[in-house]
Amino acid sequence: MADWAWVFGYSAKPSFQSRRPIKKMTQKTRPAGARRNAFYAQSGGVTAVINASACGVIETALKHPRHIGKVYAGRHGIIGALTEDLIDTSKESRATIRGLKHTPAGAFGSARFKLKGLEQNRAEYERLIEVFRAHDIGYFFYNGGNDSMDTALKVSQLSATLGYPITCIGVPKTVDNDLPHTDCCPGFGSVAKYIAVSTREAALDVASMARTSTKVFVLEVMGRHAGWIAAAAGLAGRKAGEAPHIILFPEIPFEQATFLAKVKHSVDHYGYCVVVVSEGAAYPDGRFLAEAGTRDAFGHTQLGGVAPLVANMVREAHGYKIHWAVADYLQRAARHIASKVDVEQAYACGKAAVDLAVAGHNAVMPTIVRKSSKPYRWVIGHVPLAQVANKEKKIPREFLTAEGFGITAACRRYLTPLVAGEAYPPYQDGLPDYVRIKGAPVRRRLKTAFKV
Amino acid sequence: MADWAWVFGYSAKPSFQSRRPIKKMTQKTRPAGARRNAFYAQSGGVTAVINASACGVIETALKHPRHIGKVYAGRHGIIGALTEDLIDTSKESRATIRGLKHTPAGAFGSARFKLKGLEQNRAEYERLIEVFRAHDIGYFFYNGGNDSMDTALKVSQLSATLGYPITCIGVPKTVDNDLPHTDCCPGFGSVAKYIAVSTREAALDVASMARTSTKVFVLEVMGRHAGWIAAAAGLAGRKAGEAPHIILFPEIPFEQATFLAKVKHSVDHYGYCVVVVSEGAAYPDGRFLAEAGTRDAFGHTQLGGVAPLVANMVREAHGYKIHWAVADYLQRAARHIASKVDVEQAYACGKAAVDLAVAGHNAVMPTIVRKSSKPYRWVIGHVPLAQVANKEKKIPREFLTAEGFGITAACRRYLTPLVAGEAYPPYQDGLPDYVRIKGAPVRRRLKTAFKV
Repeated sequence: MADWAWVFGYSAKPSFQSRRPIKKMTQKTRPAGARRNAFYAQSGGVTAVINASACGVIETALKHPRHIGKVYAGRHGIIGALTEDLIDTSKESRATIRGLKHTPAGAFGSARFKLKGLEQNRAEYERLIEVFRAHDIGYFFYNGGNDSMDTALKVSQLSATLGYPITCIGVPKTVDNDLPHTDCCPGFGSVAKYIAVSTREAALDVASMARTSTKVFVLEVMGRHAGWIAAAAGLAGRKAGEAPHIILFPEIPFEQATFLAKVKHSVDHYGYCVVVVSEGAAYPDGRFLAEAGTRDAFGHTQLGGVAPLVANMVREAHGYKIHWAVADYLQRAARHIASKVDVEQAYACGKAAVDLAVAGHNAVMPTIVRKSSKPYRWVIGHVPLAQVANKEKKIPREFLTAEGFGITAACRRYLTPLVAGEAYPPYQDGLPDYVRIKGAPVRRRLKTAFKV
Repeated sequence: MADWAWVFGYSAKPSFQSRRPIKKMTQKTRPAGARRNAFYAQSGGVTAVINASACGVIETALKHPRHIGKVYAGRHGIIGALTEDLIDTSKESRATIRGLKHTPAGAFGSARFKLKGLEQNRAEYERLIEVFRAHDIGYFFYNGGNDSMDTALKVSQLSATLGYPITCIGVPKTVDNDLPHTDCCPGFGSVAKYIAVSTREAALDVASMARTSTKVFVLEVMGRHAGWIAAAAGLAGRKAGEAPHIILFPEIPFEQATFLAKVKHSVDHYGYCVVVVSEGAAYPDGRFLAEAGTRDAFGHTQLGGVAPLVANMVREAHGYKIHWAVADYLQRAARHIASKVDVEQAYACGKAAVDLAVAGHNAVMPTIVRKSSKPYRWVIGHVPLAQVANKEKKIPREFLTAEGFGITAACRRYLTPLVAGEAYPPYQDGLPDYVRIKGAPVRRRLKTAFKV
């Protein structure tokens, strides 16, 4: 508990119900004894382990036949609900469902689609309820990040208003690790492991070659506003002078002169320099280093290409030979090197979501509660969606070194357990044997189409 | 044999001595009974398994104490020889030497340093002989690609001219798989596996998101003149319509209109498009798509950044949302997902180099000879350096589909065994536990310095 409280700056007891045993809740929203279907959807950017959460939801629902009938998954997330395009997961073999635990990305399809506020687009919410009603859906499990928790919360609120009872449970997922009130987010541990491993490997390469060739290597990693993924690269080095020599975090305003001096210092002292730059690295005035100018469906600026920009900056200043890499989707899809802890937590969050729902909870999200770092012990807690929705957890300043180019021992203590253990997928012909769902559609019951 | 002969277009028996048993050579160049030291150096771009070859050389040399004394490694390759900066590998623990087998990049340091022709820079060759003589080095094991085989050949020729007997054996290494007269090159199988795995994983990600987000994903891979690495991405898909939908090979002149039409076709039919582009992709007039304008020590154009270029091309033509990745060093350093076959072949080539030398061979390189593809069987052969030096093996046209955007069944048969098996490194605290050498220097015996 000590570590966990420290991370988020709490000293008093948390305001949410993370320690309350799941079984003890009264069952307010669910009609007693009614068996209803469940709807599961994946939302936003996918991860190496979001399907492990799906596996947890589906396998656990099968253990509650008195409460839960079928589990329908939205084809391409919430869009599948709006367009009544539902996948009947009972038509998949048990082996396929089990195989989701070792299969990356969103097996049912995900969506970057944020429902607007109730005032702006009440029709979308009403349509959701219409589809849920048509298919007797009493449980809504929404597997996503901040925006998705906001959607789940709104559906929960509307269901009360419209008199259609539905239990809404969020299932946390984000490689960005930026959900509040949970020690970490499923999806993060695996991308963290991938980035730490890749940084260590590439650094050995650069060190080998630096005498006559590449002296500076720049690796761009994801993380729009929170530098958790970039921080994970810091695990690659164990001693002073080991790579990465410089990490550029979104949380630390970028000062070009300081950065360039640090690059030169590293090359002068160690013979080479490995730079890890977050896609969200920004100038003191808040402008991203690489501003593409385009925006995604959530209105976020679409980034990419900060690595070549930083590489050119160094080349122009110092003339070093430089290489750069942009990991992009490779990092968040890398199930082959997933963290075992992450896979287990993703599954546990899916399982807990169902257990919470069956126990009568509503509008909550399971959380990871750290009990101790060494040895690493964690349990599942939960938090009201209202406390999670649309909030971002950045790296605490104490996790970054004074000069802002690296991580502290405290950050290392926080990160290390999250990348622990390997959970290798099965292989066939030298490649991971990932499962594909059949995706059998549920017969439509509504005559009305809905355009998204 | 059938497959192998077919790959290189041979129908008659090969002109080199690949099938001659190692033990039967007469010992012409080595003074009978003399025990002399060995020099080992890593050259050019490193790989995930070049250290496995080093391990093979060093461990095998220890088994020939009557012939080989110490194994000295060049610190940063041939530069270590020129500057008399030698590493005494006998000062490393057996565990460290064994650990090289699971450690990527060049543990002793590599170099992009090509010796000029004898007429242009005789001083360099004479210096090499001077250092070899000072340390009683009678064996030169050079672990590299085409250029390095040329250097090893020249040293061998000069040693005869200068009356200093030295046995020169090349140890094949290149991720590019472009050495002739060997079925494949150590280093290639692992990068091939990494690219095939990464393509499969990223493709699942894009397929998940395509409905509302990224429709086209572009992955840039290495391969300056030969598209072997790009071809390996083709293993990711098994059926028609599966990613990658388009591979851009250096061997196929790039036609923008055809390419853009193919991208649109893929998005229209499958909902998304995964493009794998070789850094060496070029226009019909031979210009690289991404010409950086700078050149490396070997005079090759330094490339990088063709992925964003292709991405922009697609975005401008079709307006799709696009993501791109550049794997760069991550791909060739990815020991965490190395091919087991590749690791074994790398070790076997190092071992064979020593066995060949001890048996009296000179100016040869061990080769991989494929006996059958299914089941995969291979043996070690060897070929004169003169037949390898400065030659490049490109992909045969029959390995690429008629339209030139994919691989054929024959190519798949060739590639599949090379990515077979996993050879996971040991892990500590969630990260691969790669070894570091102590790198104890050999005491200098020459008073003269040499500037490189």
